[in-house]
Amino acid sequence: MEENDSLQDLLTRFGELKGAKVMVHGGGRSATAMAERMGIETKMVDGRRITDEAMLEVVTMVYGGLVNKKIVANLQAQGINAVGLTGADLNYMQSVKRPVKTIDYGYVGDVVAVHVDELKLLIEKNVVPVLAPLTHDKNGQLLNTNADTIAAEAAIGFSRFFDVELVFCFEKAGVLEDAEDDRSVIKSLNHTGFKALQASGAIHAGMIPKLDNSFNAITQGVSQIRITNIAGLQKGGTTLLPE
Amino acid sequence: MEENDSLQDLLTRFGELKGAKVMVHGGGRSATAMAERMGIETKMVDGRRITDEAMLEVVTMVYGGLVNKKIVANLQAQGINAVGLTGADLNYMQSVKRPVKTIDYGYVGDVVAVHVDELKLLIEKNVVPVLAPLTHDKNGQLLNTNADTIAAEAAIGFSRFFDVELVFCFEKAGVLEDAEDDRSVIKSLNHTGFKALQASGAIHAGMIPKLDNSFNAITQGVSQIRITNIAGLQKGGTTLLPE
Repeated sequence: MEENDSLQDLLTRFGELKGAKVMVHGGGRSATAMAERMGIETKMVDGRRITDEAMLEVVTMVYGGLVNKKIVANLQAQGINAVGLTGADLNYMQSVKRPVKTIDYGYVGDVVAVHVDELKLLIEKNVVPVLAPLTHDKNGQLLNTNADTIAAEAAIGFSRFFDVELVFCFEKAGVLEDAEDDRSVIKSLNHTGFKALQASGAIHAGMIPKLDNSFNAITQGVSQIRITNIAGLQKGGTTLLPE
Repeated sequence: MEENDSLQDLLTRFGELKGAKVMVHGGGRSATAMAERMGIETKMVDGRRITDEAMLEVVTMVYGGLVNKKIVANLQAQGINAVGLTGADLNYMQSVKRPVKTIDYGYVGDVVAVHVDELKLLIEKNVVPVLAPLTHDKNGQLLNTNADTIAAEAAIGFSRFFDVELVFCFEKAGVLEDAEDDRSVIKSLNHTGFKALQASGAIHAGMIPKLDNSFNAITQGVSQIRITNIAGLQKGGTTLLPE
């Protein structure tokens, strides 16, 4: 999503998806690049961003402003009535600042409540929400929140009203039997299968949060979950199955 | 609005206003400061920002992200269900890139269409829109648009559905008879009076676009317009009258 060509490809394919839809985006690479331009150091622990006050300012600008509004304007040009939102907007996703255990992640939010009533109303008017990976604590504090988590939590919230399919779109065609072989996509995977693959070390570390979020969502009402790349958006990739 | 103390004061007073409400904000000083941090030069002509590609990125981040989301999170903390939007969101305000005559303002948009149907729906659900000074051309291009213009155009759009009072809130208590004397607030002013004051040079140059926008709005259905400062938000300042 962070290179213009692949972003355009993704947005065109997203535009072609039938039915009511919601997009959740990230923007980590853009945030890192912007931080560098501003002389702010990016610190990551296990692939997760440490969000101090300066970095919160960067991600608020980049996720909530630059990336979000670029996507919205592009979708509008396709005739799709998009609206870009953070969790503070319409109070649709509320979080708490992550408690410090061994690592202080800073201004990072763990989701505690999802309110999608106004989003439902907009979706029923053919509006397409575009969700940035930011939440708030309802006390005035914006918080950085992982996009995969936003996607899973929003999908769970929407499943109260809609039959929801959640699609995680990333670089690989799906969950791979062999991480080195793009053709080794596992067509369907249940939780037991996932745990076996994880134990064997076959699953890439970056996939594990997506899969954990996915299996959480599937037990909480999301009808179908797929993990795939841009080309597989319509129907490709790995389908996750409840136990 | 760009210093934390006065912003807090403004948002508290705004929160106390009764009835349906919409906020329009600027952010020029923050954009200039951010541009400087990024090594981007700010160019102004007659108090208006020249918006090249690099500056458009800055204002998209600062207006659409940083300033807008800070306000939204603050209002949510007050129990006000705010939603932060640019003109691209819900396609509520469409513009065209300003044609180059003597000055090339760059990515600056002149408003051509206002669609407030979805905003009306949200307002009827007690949502408070918070509007950033950005529009789009419906062809994927975001454009920088003066906040006073956004306020006037939105007020005109809403006047199709609501009885609208438009309040411009700035540093001075109102339109002053004597620019040096804060107690010389003119209680009410019509277009003839404005033109006479303008001819006499009594009106500060920065006020003229606000007043031009205001008299335009009053002829297009906005019921009441006031110009005042934070302290006068509820009922102070100068009331503009139709001819």
